[in-house]
Amino acid sequence: MCDKPKLSIGLIGTGFMGKAHAVGFSAAQRVFDLPMQINLHTVADVTDETASRAADELGFANWTSNWHEMIDDPEIDVIDITAPNSLHKEMALVAIAAGKHVYCEKPLACTAEDALEMTLAAEKFGAKTQVGFNYICNPMLQLAKEMIAAGELGHIRGYRGLHCEDYMASDSTPFSFRHSLAGGGALADLGSHALATAEYLLGPITDVLGDCVTMINERPNGFGGTRKVEVDDIGRAFVRFASGATGSIEGNWIATGRKMQHDFEIYGTQGALVFSQEHFNELHFYSTNDPSGRQGFRRIEAAVEHPPYANFCVAPGHQLGFNDLKAIEVAGYVSAIANNGVEPFNFRKGLRIQQLVDAIQASSRQSRWHSTLP
Amino acid sequence: MCDKPKLSIGLIGTGFMGKAHAVGFSAAQRVFDLPMQINLHTVADVTDETASRAADELGFANWTSNWHEMIDDPEIDVIDITAPNSLHKEMALVAIAAGKHVYCEKPLACTAEDALEMTLAAEKFGAKTQVGFNYICNPMLQLAKEMIAAGELGHIRGYRGLHCEDYMASDSTPFSFRHSLAGGGALADLGSHALATAEYLLGPITDVLGDCVTMINERPNGFGGTRKVEVDDIGRAFVRFASGATGSIEGNWIATGRKMQHDFEIYGTQGALVFSQEHFNELHFYSTNDPSGRQGFRRIEAAVEHPPYANFCVAPGHQLGFNDLKAIEVAGYVSAIANNGVEPFNFRKGLRIQQLVDAIQASSRQSRWHSTLP
Amino acid sequence: MCDKPKLSIGLIGTGFMGKAHAVGFSAAQRVFDLPMQINLHTVADVTDETASRAADELGFANWTSNWHEMIDDPEIDVIDITAPNSLHKEMALVAIAAGKHVYCEKPLACTAEDALEMTLAAEKFGAKTQVGFNYICNPMLQLAKEMIAAGELGHIRGYRGLHCEDYMASDSTPFSFRHSLAGGGALADLGSHALATAEYLLGPITDVLGDCVTMINERPNGFGGTRKVEVDDIGRAFVRFASGATGSIEGNWIATGRKMQHDFEIYGTQGALVFSQEHFNELHFYSTNDPSGRQGFRRIEAAVEHPPYANFCVAPGHQLGFNDLKAIEVAGYVSAIANNGVEPFNFRKGLRIQQLVDAIQASSRQSRWHSTLP
Amino acid sequence: MCDKPKLSIGLIGTGFMGKAHAVGFSAAQRVFDLPMQINLHTVADVTDETASRAADELGFANWTSNWHEMIDDPEIDVIDITAPNSLHKEMALVAIAAGKHVYCEKPLACTAEDALEMTLAAEKFGAKTQVGFNYICNPMLQLAKEMIAAGELGHIRGYRGLHCEDYMASDSTPFSFRHSLAGGGALADLGSHALATAEYLLGPITDVLGDCVTMINERPNGFGGTRKVEVDDIGRAFVRFASGATGSIEGNWIATGRKMQHDFEIYGTQGALVFSQEHFNELHFYSTNDPSGRQGFRRIEAAVEHPPYANFCVAPGHQLGFNDLKAIEVAGYVSAIANNGVEPFNFRKGLRIQQLVDAIQASSRQSRWHSTLP
Repeated sequence: MCDKPKLSIGLIGTGFMGKAHAVGFSAAQRVFDLPMQINLHTVADVTDETASRAADELGFANWTSNWHEMIDDPEIDVIDITAPNSLHKEMALVAIAAGKHVYCEKPLACTAEDALEMTLAAEKFGAKTQVGFNYICNPMLQLAKEMIAAGELGHIRGYRGLHCEDYMASDSTPFSFRHSLAGGGALADLGSHALATAEYLLGPITDVLGDCVTMINERPNGFGGTRKVEVDDIGRAFVRFASGATGSIEGNWIATGRKMQHDFEIYGTQGALVFSQEHFNELHFYSTNDPSGRQGFRRIEAAVEHPPYANFCVAPGHQLGFNDLKAIEVAGYVSAIANNGVEPFNFRKGLRIQQLVDAIQASSRQSRWHSTLP
Repeated sequence: MCDKPKLSIGLIGTGFMGKAHAVGFSAAQRVFDLPMQINLHTVADVTDETASRAADELGFANWTSNWHEMIDDPEIDVIDITAPNSLHKEMALVAIAAGKHVYCEKPLACTAEDALEMTLAAEKFGAKTQVGFNYICNPMLQLAKEMIAAGELGHIRGYRGLHCEDYMASDSTPFSFRHSLAGGGALADLGSHALATAEYLLGPITDVLGDCVTMINERPNGFGGTRKVEVDDIGRAFVRFASGATGSIEGNWIATGRKMQHDFEIYGTQGALVFSQEHFNELHFYSTNDPSGRQGFRRIEAAVEHPPYANFCVAPGHQLGFNDLKAIEVAGYVSAIANNGVEPFNFRKGLRIQQLVDAIQASSRQSRWHSTLP
Repeated sequence: MCDKPKLSIGLIGTGFMGKAHAVGFSAAQRVFDLPMQINLHTVADVTDETASRAADELGFANWTSNWHEMIDDPEIDVIDITAPNSLHKEMALVAIAAGKHVYCEKPLACTAEDALEMTLAAEKFGAKTQVGFNYICNPMLQLAKEMIAAGELGHIRGYRGLHCEDYMASDSTPFSFRHSLAGGGALADLGSHALATAEYLLGPITDVLGDCVTMINERPNGFGGTRKVEVDDIGRAFVRFASGATGSIEGNWIATGRKMQHDFEIYGTQGALVFSQEHFNELHFYSTNDPSGRQGFRRIEAAVEHPPYANFCVAPGHQLGFNDLKAIEVAGYVSAIANNGVEPFNFRKGLRIQQLVDAIQASSRQSRWHSTLP
Repeated sequence: MCDKPKLSIGLIGTGFMGKAHAVGFSAAQRVFDLPMQINLHTVADVTDETASRAADELGFANWTSNWHEMIDDPEIDVIDITAPNSLHKEMALVAIAAGKHVYCEKPLACTAEDALEMTLAAEKFGAKTQVGFNYICNPMLQLAKEMIAAGELGHIRGYRGLHCEDYMASDSTPFSFRHSLAGGGALADLGSHALATAEYLLGPITDVLGDCVTMINERPNGFGGTRKVEVDDIGRAFVRFASGATGSIEGNWIATGRKMQHDFEIYGTQGALVFSQEHFNELHFYSTNDPSGRQGFRRIEAAVEHPPYANFCVAPGHQLGFNDLKAIEVAGYVSAIANNGVEPFNFRKGLRIQQLVDAIQASSRQSRWHSTLP
């Protein structure tokens, strides 16, 4: 493996997602037989202290408090951006212009316009890109996609997709950037995952009819007063797929009790699939081809038959964790950089999700169907 | 109990629902301490043979093939209509005019106009009426309603209600009256239950935005050809409640693998409820008042604390069946006739559901929100 | 159906089980096309008041406070005993000698010796008998039995059977006859159901190794003091089946939180079954014949393919309740009386269960395997 | 962190468990704020090729095909043994004598005698030791232990513990060392986990009554013939705890369909816990302190309130995977080496498990209770 080309990473941001990315790179290296040797080259944060401390903890060889310098470093191949959303665009454009590949946490940008600019830049410069939509990296979702493609469910007719959590359910949670237009709201933050999964599984959505509602109109401003919330708490949509299937989507961050309800149900002419992220190492499959009196949803547990599960464990039922999904994402991205396959979720796909979110929000305001032809 | 007033029943129709009603009357009599003595007086069907056979099997003292005669019989107090939908109106109006109480299987009528006429007639004549919406007779739904009313969930913000089955999922199932406008479609047939449960739990819906789709456009006509389906296979709606809650509804009869997905999820500021008819002797309750680190959806099993469970069994966890829900419905109706309480689901409520269905269908055609102010 | 022979019932006891039997007879009559016409002839209880009141409520034509008189009545065909356990033997022997068929709630008797005497008497007189083990009347258990018999699981190797509840979990529950030797304890009361299900599914148990423990040694005696408990709170056993399968059994009435954990898991060479009474309208089936990567426990919901479900409902997934199981038991018993098939669970089977319980208890005292060759 | 003392690891064996350990060390370093800096120093395997390749893939700086040399290297602090079971003893004794700390995959040794020798050596030399019982490193098990210790369940009365899989369910799986006395059988291989969890949660087991059975008596020998299996396929035991609780244990490797049924149920006077490794990020808790009519098993999802979950993710419900449990194990071990707390599962605990297994097997042969006083 010593003869593998080196892939040097420059990470910007050392918060929760920065750490998750570092763990992901590290795990991917040991779990997968990657085509390149990952080198945690440099980590950047706003102060020397934070950056130097993170370098130690996360295993980077160098650190800096000047991300521009890091991007200028010719040794670095990939710029990995986990900085606040509002900085994504500037950092990505500079990195792309410098010839780097760019890995960016979701959302890609604050607006679809910005996301488009970033996407076009990446495509112009030939940068390999990745946006952090990691739920689709689950072997069970890959299985679902393959089963659908193979016709095991027949022709798909109905879909329900959710991503509901409760982390904004308390109305005493103070106003933050997430409650401003720049933050985007529940549909942008969580519903985006439901949209990504829906298109991952069933292909392009062509039309949407939205219903975005704000249930908590004001939140504490931190100074004893309140501030008006600018975004939705629940974003719902009816959707049409190019395949002819119809369905619904919901993103919700005030669903008291729900921690990770990234769920879907798919109904086809020959079978059905039911999935819940709450038990994300399982996929429930109903087949009308089973004998009469023996039909039922069967609980398929993740096992070596479901790539890339076997990279993590040779025995079935041991289960992957959330951080393992990040490792799968990283592995797919590194393979794409080495020209083995395509990026799991590149900037264009990230842009697509933002366009869908925008269309649903506009549809909700206007109370009419919007086209989202890809 | 010999001194209880007698309540004589005249049943029209001896198919599946007729039998279910007869079993319900019989079980209600033995399971509940009813204020009246039920007397299975006469059963009517289209032929003498069918009617006489049903009288024996179902325990009615008399039979007839002329329902008009039965309605004229002064000994009979209640006319119970389980005949085809298209006959409901005529039978009910004649019975009401004859001074009978009327129990009618759902849907109340083929159109909201007809349902309104029936409702006004019943109210004019003081008839006690009942429409067969039996899912709401579940002790777990009564519990849910009480918990919501008592504020155990705080203020309700989000709702999802479904009623999905697969009995029309095969496109080789021939065209029947259910596929005609008179039949109403999946929203009218199944979504109506989801709407009834939604209003039962959260109060009136004020606005709807519908999406009714036909996925199987043609069905075999039984003569080697096909016939165009006139109704929806999936009916979806976004809804607003007068309480301020928002939500979604789905009725679906092509949900492959689903036999009885009459489910709901309710999210409030202090807690949540999750229910599935697939396990209808349970209610899952999340409370933010539970201690930190000990919160979770708790599976409450039906028990004597949840009336009227104790009428069926003195020990917890033994479970009610579908037919028991019918017995509860009957018991509630008989009590109402004896002026103990109101009917569980009278004609006006049945009318209301049809108005909601109509509004959703109109909204879907016009792609705009419709008011459903009650 | 008027030409069906009449079967007149004399019921002794009007408590919970008496009521359940009356409802069962009534429901069986309307739900099944029984070969005989059930006639609720007479009900007996200890006082005139109780008996007469029960006659009204439960629909019996006559009543008496003298059960001897009732047994002497030549019009009555079946004596149904739901009186206290200690009276079962006397009542049954008198009834059998009078030429009656006898239906007796479980346990058949207080000792295996008594049960044997009752069984021999019944066999000598040709009485059709029935003991109230109604869990095995579940269509899902019949399905399980058929699947095993048909070899769908291959050869059975491992079994786990439970019946755990918590109705004796509080140590402030006072001493009652159930805590005396006559009552029998948790193994006799609840474990007996687990044993009945085990032999119903897998055939005879040949050897047992028991572990019966008393966890609450004293209970309030109702006079301010306590009384020593004479029976087990948990009865466990390892078992060997004649088929070669091995397994374990547990009866437990102090399993806090469990209301109806009558569960089993069966592991064969080609498949497995998992069942819980907590969701008793489902059976979970794993088959090694499913394709690789698509294997999993599938949740089969009770439906018309699973007799006698269709007698209760023509559509799948509607679910039976506990009282419906009693109706199935009654229907099987009535059919046996009419010489259509064998009794679902006759006195000899009831005797068998008591012998197994005795053997486990003796095995526990002696800490060695006991033979239970049937 | 540069000022943290370095802890250099020498790993023997590069198969599945070797890889899992390497990933565990790597993840522990990035996920936890460890008191020492982990240095993957050298990896040893039987050939130069295997060892050198593993060094690259797993991130070790050096490699060797001579494990003796590695143990002699004064730079190495910890010898991590994932070699075949039969080599554990020799390697561990040499390493301990050389002053190393020793991390050894389970089972510690082939016999309890060997395990005792290893334990005494480690204690004599002051070596910090660890055996790979990683299921107990689950935050949900730590939570269960804390809840029990805090009295949230009251006094514990009943326990059921399982570890069932199906990886030996096919009788065409050839004979291997696992089927020989040295391999130990299902009880030693899987039941050992159930025993470890039982004592982890409830404290010492004092008495056992075993039932160890071989269901597949012969297996293919790989040369066209068969070889007699020397060990059990299912090992069951009744157990007594020093606390007064009673329970049962099962280890089973022929449980068709089960991939990871490491489950337990605990019943106390005030509450109960139910856990399944099949959903190992959840713990189900029943409390009699909940209000009447609102009691039920509540599904607690792993969250930041449950250490060390927060080290992996700051948001609830994201879930840990199997490899994360290994990282927790490593972190606990490294902390113990740095004298922060005790080893999660040291040699003496590993020895204890083997003694319990031996006692159950002896008890099964003799059909009598055996003392296992610790």
